[in-house]
Amino acid sequence: MSIDGLFKYDCVSLDADGSGVTVLDQTLLPWEEKFLVLRDEAQVYEAIARLRVRGAPAIGIAAAYGLYVAFRRAVSVPGFDQSQCRSEFYRISRFLCSARPTAVNLSAALSRMERRFEASSGRTMDELLDALRSEADAVKSDDAAMCAAIAENGAALIDRPGMGILTHCNAGHYAVSRYGTALAPVYLAHSRGLAPRVYADETRPLMQGARITAFELMKAGVDVTLQCDNMAASLMASGKIDLVLTGCDRVAANGDTANKIGTSALAVLARYYGLPFYILGPTSSIDPDAVSGADIPVEQRPAEEVTELYFHRRIAPEGVKVYNPAFDITPSELISGIVTERGIFRPPYDFSNLKLDTAV
Amino acid sequence: MSIDGLFKYDCVSLDADGSGVTVLDQTLLPWEEKFLVLRDEAQVYEAIARLRVRGAPAIGIAAAYGLYVAFRRAVSVPGFDQSQCRSEFYRISRFLCSARPTAVNLSAALSRMERRFEASSGRTMDELLDALRSEADAVKSDDAAMCAAIAENGAALIDRPGMGILTHCNAGHYAVSRYGTALAPVYLAHSRGLAPRVYADETRPLMQGARITAFELMKAGVDVTLQCDNMAASLMASGKIDLVLTGCDRVAANGDTANKIGTSALAVLARYYGLPFYILGPTSSIDPDAVSGADIPVEQRPAEEVTELYFHRRIAPEGVKVYNPAFDITPSELISGIVTERGIFRPPYDFSNLKLDTAV
Repeated sequence: MSIDGLFKYDCVSLDADGSGVTVLDQTLLPWEEKFLVLRDEAQVYEAIARLRVRGAPAIGIAAAYGLYVAFRRAVSVPGFDQSQCRSEFYRISRFLCSARPTAVNLSAALSRMERRFEASSGRTMDELLDALRSEADAVKSDDAAMCAAIAENGAALIDRPGMGILTHCNAGHYAVSRYGTALAPVYLAHSRGLAPRVYADETRPLMQGARITAFELMKAGVDVTLQCDNMAASLMASGKIDLVLTGCDRVAANGDTANKIGTSALAVLARYYGLPFYILGPTSSIDPDAVSGADIPVEQRPAEEVTELYFHRRIAPEGVKVYNPAFDITPSELISGIVTERGIFRPPYDFSNLKLDTAV
Repeated sequence: MSIDGLFKYDCVSLDADGSGVTVLDQTLLPWEEKFLVLRDEAQVYEAIARLRVRGAPAIGIAAAYGLYVAFRRAVSVPGFDQSQCRSEFYRISRFLCSARPTAVNLSAALSRMERRFEASSGRTMDELLDALRSEADAVKSDDAAMCAAIAENGAALIDRPGMGILTHCNAGHYAVSRYGTALAPVYLAHSRGLAPRVYADETRPLMQGARITAFELMKAGVDVTLQCDNMAASLMASGKIDLVLTGCDRVAANGDTANKIGTSALAVLARYYGLPFYILGPTSSIDPDAVSGADIPVEQRPAEEVTELYFHRRIAPEGVKVYNPAFDITPSELISGIVTERGIFRPPYDFSNLKLDTAV
């Protein structure tokens, strides 16, 4: 089976007639698989802000399509003053950009749409709309190509049948265009008949592993077992794990990597148990301005995420102090390699060539 | 302030008139502090089986007092046939022993009561009841003395003000007669004005850290911060932790230690971050028949504990496979020391003298 045959749908796609963006409402996972069709900027904004669409690449794709759909709708209203076309486009773009101010992919995708808008000046409205649609398609297809390259590069790590692979949080199909990052090689290996066995950390506090990773792997027919985050050492000691694969939020110039809280503990455990630990993500996650992990700011999240479990029911004493960082920093010395669309980087990490290349 | 001044009550105590066992219903923590008075064997059984009383030592104490109270009540019924006294005593004892078949302290406490019963043959009923009450008191006071000795022995590890102490699960006041095991030195240090700062792992899947450890420390005025289990590495990397203290369920002859799932990861992390990691518990936890951790069986618990969070609401896909061991084994090489009522054992672990002593 081809890797694409594993997926019934993408979590973000443009309707054939261009009038709506269809997204899977991920806040309802794993209980319900419900699709929403977003037809204006308010609906797109709400879907991003309320995390119905999540995962930085998926958000960028939803925003690009959303900008196209909402702009197209606005200029199609009878009597629309064509001289207001530019201000209307930027109004929608800025509005969508404010849905989640910290997501880099969101602003990057919208900037890309804005550049295409500028490059299309002097064209007819139909030509402009075609250009915007094609740019939004390219945001998605570029992401899919990136994921496919990570899948191929990472597949070298899954070189025998039945390997046990531990992962954390969700860096899979539902976070991106298709395939995922950390899970991309897993899907590829599965499609090649290697039957990988995935162990998914539930990922407290927000349970992305239990809710989304377990769901998408089961749906694709991949063997998956769920465990609490504190069970990884027991799994490794028992010999069930051969490899650890996680995504990344940001990689410093020395290879230190920020990812979902709990990642760094897996790297320490993997080192103790002699297991390879790989980070997977696009080269756009590498931040040359961060010399080391110390330069990556780590957001503290609300206490209620910890004290109220997932269902807004309090499990801890009222008023207890809480430590709840969103990310942790995995020291580069613990990372066996960083798998990108441009190959696997290995320690000592040196991304300077990459920097030159991408600056071109 | 004395250490005893920190506690308003014990979680298990005998009523002054000997007619009831008062226990804190720990299933209601942290939401409600409700006491139950148990007056017959059915009520005591229910409280133990439903985990209203929890923690192996506390269960043993509740069973010893429960046997006394229930037997006293039975023989006080007008017309009770005194010739049935022995069979009635053993009936109640066996019934209580079946409330949680795997808890060693439960059967040990009841065996102790049975030996006292046998040693009192030929006495009057009043003398027999006095002997049983005094034996049950001794089960509790022996446990309190054990905890007090662990507090003193472990206090040497908390030798400066404001130390950050990470703990897992609950090995505190509410698991025992008083003080606790892992938390006993913390309470003692706090009573001496050393203001320890405790970081309590929430302890998935059953949340004993969030529900009980955080509650009892706050109640005693000890500075406590709650975090998810996967945040320990971040805490250690940030320099907030000076020492890791946990309890134990069983210690093998070579020092390998079984304790609540998640403990061994803390030991690996502590080693990586250069922090001391200590196990605390009574010498009765040392099992000379287990040569190493490989000889300690680890129970797999129901999947629903993981897939349904704490409130019986499903968070994971229906039918997902689950890995849910109750305990893990911390390799002895990672344990800085094992703090018991008889002192601190240090690697390489050799409990053979202890074995000779306790055989006396």
